[in-house]
Amino acid sequence: MREIRVGLLGAGVVGSEVAHVLLERSDKLSEQVGATVALQRIVVKDASKKRPSFIPTELLSTNPDDVVSNPDVDIVVELIGGEHPPLELMTKAISNGKHVVTANKEVMAKSGYRLLSLAAQRGVDLRYEASVGAGIPILSPLQQDLAANEIASIRAIVNGTTNYILSKMAREDMDYQTALRQAQELGYAESDPTNDIEGIDAAYKLSILASLAFHTPVKPSDIFTQGISTLHPKDFTYARELGYAVKLLAIAKRHDDGIEARVHPAMVSLNSQLANVDGVFNAIQIEGDLVGPLVFFGRGAGALPTTSTVVADVLTIARNIAAGSLIRPRIELNRRIDVKPMSKVETSYYLRIAVKDQPGVLAEIARVLGDHAISISSVIQKELNADAQTAIIVIMTHPALEASMQAATAKLSSLTIMNEVSALIRVED
Amino acid sequence: MREIRVGLLGAGVVGSEVAHVLLERSDKLSEQVGATVALQRIVVKDASKKRPSFIPTELLSTNPDDVVSNPDVDIVVELIGGEHPPLELMTKAISNGKHVVTANKEVMAKSGYRLLSLAAQRGVDLRYEASVGAGIPILSPLQQDLAANEIASIRAIVNGTTNYILSKMAREDMDYQTALRQAQELGYAESDPTNDIEGIDAAYKLSILASLAFHTPVKPSDIFTQGISTLHPKDFTYARELGYAVKLLAIAKRHDDGIEARVHPAMVSLNSQLANVDGVFNAIQIEGDLVGPLVFFGRGAGALPTTSTVVADVLTIARNIAAGSLIRPRIELNRRIDVKPMSKVETSYYLRIAVKDQPGVLAEIARVLGDHAISISSVIQKELNADAQTAIIVIMTHPALEASMQAATAKLSSLTIMNEVSALIRVED
Repeated sequence: MREIRVGLLGAGVVGSEVAHVLLERSDKLSEQVGATVALQRIVVKDASKKRPSFIPTELLSTNPDDVVSNPDVDIVVELIGGEHPPLELMTKAISNGKHVVTANKEVMAKSGYRLLSLAAQRGVDLRYEASVGAGIPILSPLQQDLAANEIASIRAIVNGTTNYILSKMAREDMDYQTALRQAQELGYAESDPTNDIEGIDAAYKLSILASLAFHTPVKPSDIFTQGISTLHPKDFTYARELGYAVKLLAIAKRHDDGIEARVHPAMVSLNSQLANVDGVFNAIQIEGDLVGPLVFFGRGAGALPTTSTVVADVLTIARNIAAGSLIRPRIELNRRIDVKPMSKVETSYYLRIAVKDQPGVLAEIARVLGDHAISISSVIQKELNADAQTAIIVIMTHPALEASMQAATAKLSSLTIMNEVSALIRVED
Repeated sequence: MREIRVGLLGAGVVGSEVAHVLLERSDKLSEQVGATVALQRIVVKDASKKRPSFIPTELLSTNPDDVVSNPDVDIVVELIGGEHPPLELMTKAISNGKHVVTANKEVMAKSGYRLLSLAAQRGVDLRYEASVGAGIPILSPLQQDLAANEIASIRAIVNGTTNYILSKMAREDMDYQTALRQAQELGYAESDPTNDIEGIDAAYKLSILASLAFHTPVKPSDIFTQGISTLHPKDFTYARELGYAVKLLAIAKRHDDGIEARVHPAMVSLNSQLANVDGVFNAIQIEGDLVGPLVFFGRGAGALPTTSTVVADVLTIARNIAAGSLIRPRIELNRRIDVKPMSKVETSYYLRIAVKDQPGVLAEIARVLGDHAISISSVIQKELNADAQTAIIVIMTHPALEASMQAATAKLSSLTIMNEVSALIRVED
């Protein structure tokens, strides 16, 4: 049987597990591929670090060239994470004619188009299924199984950290800081959680998904991104009363005049599949013109789910090598469609405002919204503080332009009857 | 650009739609494949039948050999449905060295292993993604994306007709006959609904899924199959009170001593993803040792979702032909694992019984169950009819052997204190 050799960059939690599976299940995997899949080399930063006993010391090296420039290596698996040096190492590996598998969302979001083009030129494959949704098969279904469809929309929960925090806030009426601290204690959030809670991680993943769905490069910098740190438990309660859950959604839609792409907290109907995705789970909903709505649900993070997908990508490439197939990544990013600025996006809104409790208040709020072409679908007075003579009002709107809503809330804030616009959450139906 | 030619068997609702997409989206599809995908011939039963205007009359033929033995045809798409003549036509097409795409669950469940082996010998591909879950990508993820996993279990809602009926019964407290009639009026159930309501269709699909998941042929005749026609609205109400939904589940699990494979109504926790699959939607939950639980959700029937998948299978084969790849189906049904008889399966149970309202009744029931090693997790008296001196009791058990439960219910039915064992529903946690 032909031998296909794998070189690993990185032996952290994921890298170690990938090494473990490649070594331990070698026979079974090779049988499936029709060729021997052999782990050839593992590049680590610190060779003296204590490692699990299943990692053979003789495979370790601290020199990345032992993998990316090694003529014996067919497939390079990049699991270092972060933008540098993975971008440089992957570029070098591809230039050297090696197939590459990675779980690196940052590199694929920022430089995926360039790397895929280079891989196509060099006639090698570049697979990155684990970069979105870890264990959930989504990029391959999008490219292969949905190839006959025009994709209309993507709505996804692709960040487990924020979904864990939001689930806690919703179910246990916990405030944001407490939920974050708990997530950190459980290892679901990093000590610097910025990338997760500000939606940056989700925007990387949406960039990857939207690019494949719409066949055009969608850059992370094109994506409107808003995090979850300003959400208040009160709004989870009101949302539930109105029949909604609050989730950090990554949303991309195709319109005749362009694409919209945005990451922000959103209210979704309690009856929707996405509302029932709790804790660290991820779910990606895709709507195609033929297939209708599809939802892919599973663990969006963790060493084992990521390993499941990384090894599958290695096996797919190995199978193609064994079949003598001319392989190269299918880049079909051959359309050029603009991403609309957020101001031009239309969506419905949930608005929580604190007002002075006096006659004519509602009429004045309604007039301001009406002046901005924003139509109200319901108004509920939620709380009345007789002593302070203030009231809390919750307003749900019909779809309106983001620019109009921003102008309207600025205007509302300036009214003397207003205390504050306390919350503005977009509603995704 | 190389031309890859497709021959279509059948131009019913699905066949017409496949022809439509292949013709209408020809440029876009060809661009994705890197070769021209051309519809060459359409075989129909009745050439004089009125067809949609987009079907070019000059492509029609009534002779299947114009496709399966036509040297100009590269890929044969079988969309006739039913076992015969599709089995014979697919066999002939493969023998003639043609790649085959089908949505035929009956043929693939009963003769898939034989056809796949023949295709492997002849070096052609046989793809059948649409045979399970119509528009939902599931066979390809199972074979490709989950290849590194040992699959532990499958739990699936794979029949839209029964799921529509059960959703109606649950939500609208409708009885079975009314819900079935409504499904028939809406075209969700056929005039002879036997295959759907008796679980035969679901068993075909489970046979296909379980074979791929466990790498061993699982025959439809090995699968315990029980339909939904005896379910009573009362049990949906009690189930909901206990925190469960009632669904027709296709279940397959891997144990050290064999496989279990069964189709029957089952109670699933209201918190589970499967409980929230309503109407004609399908969902397939797969548990792998690395990836954990995954759920694939979408439209499990209908012309457009099926077309989405059939055309995707055609494109995958076309792409491989264009890449000069040595293609053949990956049959990895190389293990031989027995399917356990139902009597040896362990599961929890919901039991609704009508008893005479007299002292000592519960003690006697508990004794009978205990004698059969069945442990009770809860007992609730649901209704008391003082006039008739009868009571309805609902019992939930811990996991017990099916054989024991069958023996216990037989024994219970013979007791003088019993009116009847009114319902026995398995519980899937």
